[in-house]
Amino acid sequence: MQELEIKIKKDGQVLPGDVLKVGSFLNQQLDVDFLMEMGAEIARLFKGDDVTKILTIESSGIAIAVTAAASMHVPVVFAKKHVSSNVSGECYSVPIHSFTHGNTYNATVSKEYLSPEDRVLIVDDFLARGNAIRGLAGMVKDAGASLVGCAIAVEKGFQGAGDALRSEGIRVESLAIIDRMTDDGDIEFRR
Amino acid sequence: MQELEIKIKKDGQVLPGDVLKVGSFLNQQLDVDFLMEMGAEIARLFKGDDVTKILTIESSGIAIAVTAAASMHVPVVFAKKHVSSNVSGECYSVPIHSFTHGNTYNATVSKEYLSPEDRVLIVDDFLARGNAIRGLAGMVKDAGASLVGCAIAVEKGFQGAGDALRSEGIRVESLAIIDRMTDDGDIEFRR
Repeated sequence: MQELEIKIKKDGQVLPGDVLKVGSFLNQQLDVDFLMEMGAEIARLFKGDDVTKILTIESSGIAIAVTAAASMHVPVVFAKKHVSSNVSGECYSVPIHSFTHGNTYNATVSKEYLSPEDRVLIVDDFLARGNAIRGLAGMVKDAGASLVGCAIAVEKGFQGAGDALRSEGIRVESLAIIDRMTDDGDIEFRR
Repeated sequence: MQELEIKIKKDGQVLPGDVLKVGSFLNQQLDVDFLMEMGAEIARLFKGDDVTKILTIESSGIAIAVTAAASMHVPVVFAKKHVSSNVSGECYSVPIHSFTHGNTYNATVSKEYLSPEDRVLIVDDFLARGNAIRGLAGMVKDAGASLVGCAIAVEKGFQGAGDALRSEGIRVESLAIIDRMTDDGDIEFRR
């Protein structure tokens, strides 16, 4: 999605440790009009795939998942990273290691929100090492639901997880794929 | 908003400790088509108030904030509860006590995303004891920005925080206000 590549070049900041900061439109501040366009593009990519539910993980995945759902007219379910009194009953639970935060947490979803009849699209803002996506895919499998594919805003292609998932037969559509990123701010996208 | 009251009566569950579980449409699972209607209603209520930015807090406030922003065509900024490598530079930071989770956390927003020119609408899914709203209002003040008001999906009117804020001159618009809620599931809305 060319507009996204332009926006990453214009507003993104490369921080040490392969961190791409896009907080001005995709993370702490959300350019919702632009996110709605990204959501519409995700809906276009998965049109005809009979998606019944979008699965994401709190909290930075929620916004892009909601805008995709607004175009696809399906519900969003988000996995929680922290157990809360609002989650009751039986849950699907998978451990996910976060390189960004340097810890491992249990992502949980109440069993009532994923069922074998569901055709699930996983949506997230970033795909880096793929741990979150693999965790969510594991939940879809545990639920006996069908995984239609994954829609990602920004894939760090140079970290290889997206291509690994694709080689396993999982459909991964990323709106922008970064193949090279240098500490002095140079960003190269996959053509 | 009558459709919201009907949905709370139909799908909400009262849990011990004055917890209202609306996870099937407003929390862990998000009925995005319905949230878009709620967002449009918030836009209608604050039409003409020249809102430049919506402020919320992760993670359950993000979805309703995004749908309101989609109708209002303004960006969303969300306060983070957990420090992350994605937040850099100077921040506004306020301590907020959560009764739901029984802890106190520091909510932070990068200073670059709130400025004195901003006219801020605070949006959240729940208003119970008002700690999160007061924390966010404190950030707006710290930034020298103007607080236009607060838009809430579900206010627990019986806990009094909404009326306390109103008596201090803050405009609080809640799409549903619960005045009584019993452990056997009876819910009474304010007329």
